[in-house]
Amino acid sequence: MRLSRYFLPILRETPKEAEIVSHRLMLRAGMVRQESAGIYAWLPLGHRVLQKVSKIIREEQNRSGAIELLMPTIQSADLWRESGRYDAYGKEMLRIRDRQDREMLFGPTNEEMITEIFRAYVKSYKDLPLNLYHIQWKFRDEVRPRFGVMRSREFLMKDAYSFDLDQASAVHSYNKMFIAYLRTFERLGLKAIPMRADTGPIGGDLSHEFIILADTGESEVFCHRDYLDFQVPGADTDFDNADALKATVAKWTWLYAATSEMHDQTAYAAIPEASRVSARGIEVGHIFYFGTKYSEPMGAHVQGPDGKPVPVHGGSYGIGPSRVVAAIIEASHDEAGIRWPAAVAPFDVALLNLKQGDSAVDAACEELYRTLSAKGVEVLYDDRDDRPGAKFATADLIGIPCQVMIGPRSLAEGKVELKMRNTGERELLSPADFVARVTGAAA
Amino acid sequence: MRLSRYFLPILRETPKEAEIVSHRLMLRAGMVRQESAGIYAWLPLGHRVLQKVSKIIREEQNRSGAIELLMPTIQSADLWRESGRYDAYGKEMLRIRDRQDREMLFGPTNEEMITEIFRAYVKSYKDLPLNLYHIQWKFRDEVRPRFGVMRSREFLMKDAYSFDLDQASAVHSYNKMFIAYLRTFERLGLKAIPMRADTGPIGGDLSHEFIILADTGESEVFCHRDYLDFQVPGADTDFDNADALKATVAKWTWLYAATSEMHDQTAYAAIPEASRVSARGIEVGHIFYFGTKYSEPMGAHVQGPDGKPVPVHGGSYGIGPSRVVAAIIEASHDEAGIRWPAAVAPFDVALLNLKQGDSAVDAACEELYRTLSAKGVEVLYDDRDDRPGAKFATADLIGIPCQVMIGPRSLAEGKVELKMRNTGERELLSPADFVARVTGAAA
Repeated sequence: MRLSRYFLPILRETPKEAEIVSHRLMLRAGMVRQESAGIYAWLPLGHRVLQKVSKIIREEQNRSGAIELLMPTIQSADLWRESGRYDAYGKEMLRIRDRQDREMLFGPTNEEMITEIFRAYVKSYKDLPLNLYHIQWKFRDEVRPRFGVMRSREFLMKDAYSFDLDQASAVHSYNKMFIAYLRTFERLGLKAIPMRADTGPIGGDLSHEFIILADTGESEVFCHRDYLDFQVPGADTDFDNADALKATVAKWTWLYAATSEMHDQTAYAAIPEASRVSARGIEVGHIFYFGTKYSEPMGAHVQGPDGKPVPVHGGSYGIGPSRVVAAIIEASHDEAGIRWPAAVAPFDVALLNLKQGDSAVDAACEELYRTLSAKGVEVLYDDRDDRPGAKFATADLIGIPCQVMIGPRSLAEGKVELKMRNTGERELLSPADFVARVTGAAA
Repeated sequence: MRLSRYFLPILRETPKEAEIVSHRLMLRAGMVRQESAGIYAWLPLGHRVLQKVSKIIREEQNRSGAIELLMPTIQSADLWRESGRYDAYGKEMLRIRDRQDREMLFGPTNEEMITEIFRAYVKSYKDLPLNLYHIQWKFRDEVRPRFGVMRSREFLMKDAYSFDLDQASAVHSYNKMFIAYLRTFERLGLKAIPMRADTGPIGGDLSHEFIILADTGESEVFCHRDYLDFQVPGADTDFDNADALKATVAKWTWLYAATSEMHDQTAYAAIPEASRVSARGIEVGHIFYFGTKYSEPMGAHVQGPDGKPVPVHGGSYGIGPSRVVAAIIEASHDEAGIRWPAAVAPFDVALLNLKQGDSAVDAACEELYRTLSAKGVEVLYDDRDDRPGAKFATADLIGIPCQVMIGPRSLAEGKVELKMRNTGERELLSPADFVARVTGAAA
């Protein structure tokens, strides 16, 4: 992408309204724009990151056996009356009347609707287990939206819903999602620790939040230090092996880890002092097993092996891609701007032309841009007529992992200059060596 | 994907509420489910098609130089008061009050919001031209939603918005989208004819609808037969070559083509009789040039070359991917079900195990499934314990272009049977030859 033809509205000033660093950097880097309180447009740079985050989440959901569909944003109030949550949900639910005066709402979550879909089609235990997910915009009418997309009113959510015949198989479905979440967050460049959690308005018996540690975290969390070094299960995980998954989940849950609301000071004090971690955390995922909480009132039964109807056991599993984008920035930035993990960076390479209008430099840049693009490398080519200093600052602010600079001096030696954003490491090398390096790293 | 683990709720009965064939087939094939009047969930099979359609639209938008972002669904009423459309839009706009009693709405289109984004950042003619698009859910509160996703209330829309300094460059932007649309519909397997159109509530001076011919079309259209054989511009089109684009658009617009509301009987009668086509049509895209209709009232000015502020010239360009899915079915089906064009088929290959439980057949199917999947071919493997006849019927109904059947008889000869859904052509060939055929066709 040529920056001269892109839409990257960088802000020079730090916006006053932004209280946290991710919000400030997302506004400054031209990633988002607030359209109403707690409602954001994702500008092109932000949209690219949001798509990459969503893609990784989707790939790991699919790997674990979950199946993607897409439910609408607008739901009928009657559906929520069946579960009893319509009156219970409170003012966070955005309630709507359509032109026929029917009561509708903008979905804040989808347990009711997915249960309605399930009960309409699935009649036998032979069709279980089933895990259906979608990635869709939700709305929660927060009384005080803030922190940018970290706590917005309209937000993107991946929510999965599992259906099983009994508790044992439901726990296996829960464990699949548990492992999928560990893998997802690792691929997103985040170190997430599962913590036993309160179930809140979703309800249920068993629940974990996935929390990343960041100095700017929204809440206090406590855990055993060993979690920080645990190895995440590989891409070759057999999600059908219930015993193996159970053992992995046991390993990831037997040491102490709790959010402040679930914190037990006595248990925490029993950890050797050197292994205690007390830090700020950001919730990036939340999973629930809630048994028959929705299937019973809504009549989602299947015929069991003995021919009798059984209400199915359910769970739900959420990650908010829009919130995750902000969380990644909270966990990975410096004074100069964002430092994207490679997997979610909006572009792989920032190519900076340090003397636009110099024919040799222009030609070398064009050549490198074409070569990399042809190899499938995503390049943001800064071909604007601007000072080198401004180009350096923009590249650092928007956080592209790999910067390559071409100016008359290095070019006279047949070299280009590489700078790695995350380490600051610099190197002079030939354009051909640079291409080999970048495509090798991408392969 | 193994069908035994998939969620494909085929309906045996033809649903009574469905008036048109695409609606009937989408319900029967388990592609969509109505959740409220005119509001649909996209079940896994339907979701796959919707994603493929969206991807082709996105690729052609990008090729033409448009830049993707993502605007929210919920908008502020104040924004629409600036353009004067808040009161004018009528009851099709879904109006909402949030918990602070602010007037909001679910966006039916985005001219106002994109103009707000544009004016916030773009200050100089040097930053033009600019074409920004998104693919987002919209809501129009139709008084009588019907025809399934062809005329639903909540629908997916790709809407692009161009900004230019003057009319001449705005027409070039319009021409870019015109060409992008021709290419998009061709890749979607549709023969779309641009027809001069009424501008309706979007407003403006210049507008074309892209219409496909289908016996079940919603309206009557009239055009010159030569359009049916015109060649669509290639992938190597230079979108910066204004003269070439202008010539192409001229070629595609100088012959007679009109929807019934723009029909001119005298002009039509002047066409030689053998070249007259009068048929039913379905609108699949609509493009508008509207000059300064939004930029003037909303103050979207840039500094021109002479330093003076100029209101920008705009256009907007819409394709509804959700509607397009239905339109493709209207144009491509038979008695047995859907016949997907290869580019948008939910799977490339349907692999039918004709004797589940026969160890040789099972092994051959598993081997073929693994081989094809490893090569990136998307296979729906019917591994259910069901009669061959039921499997044939399902494969035909859901319309996968290439069916491969493995049973004891063909396997005894070392063969599998290939059936092409669109032609009915059948062939016995070795599994290796089948793999070569499929991957060769995909390459």
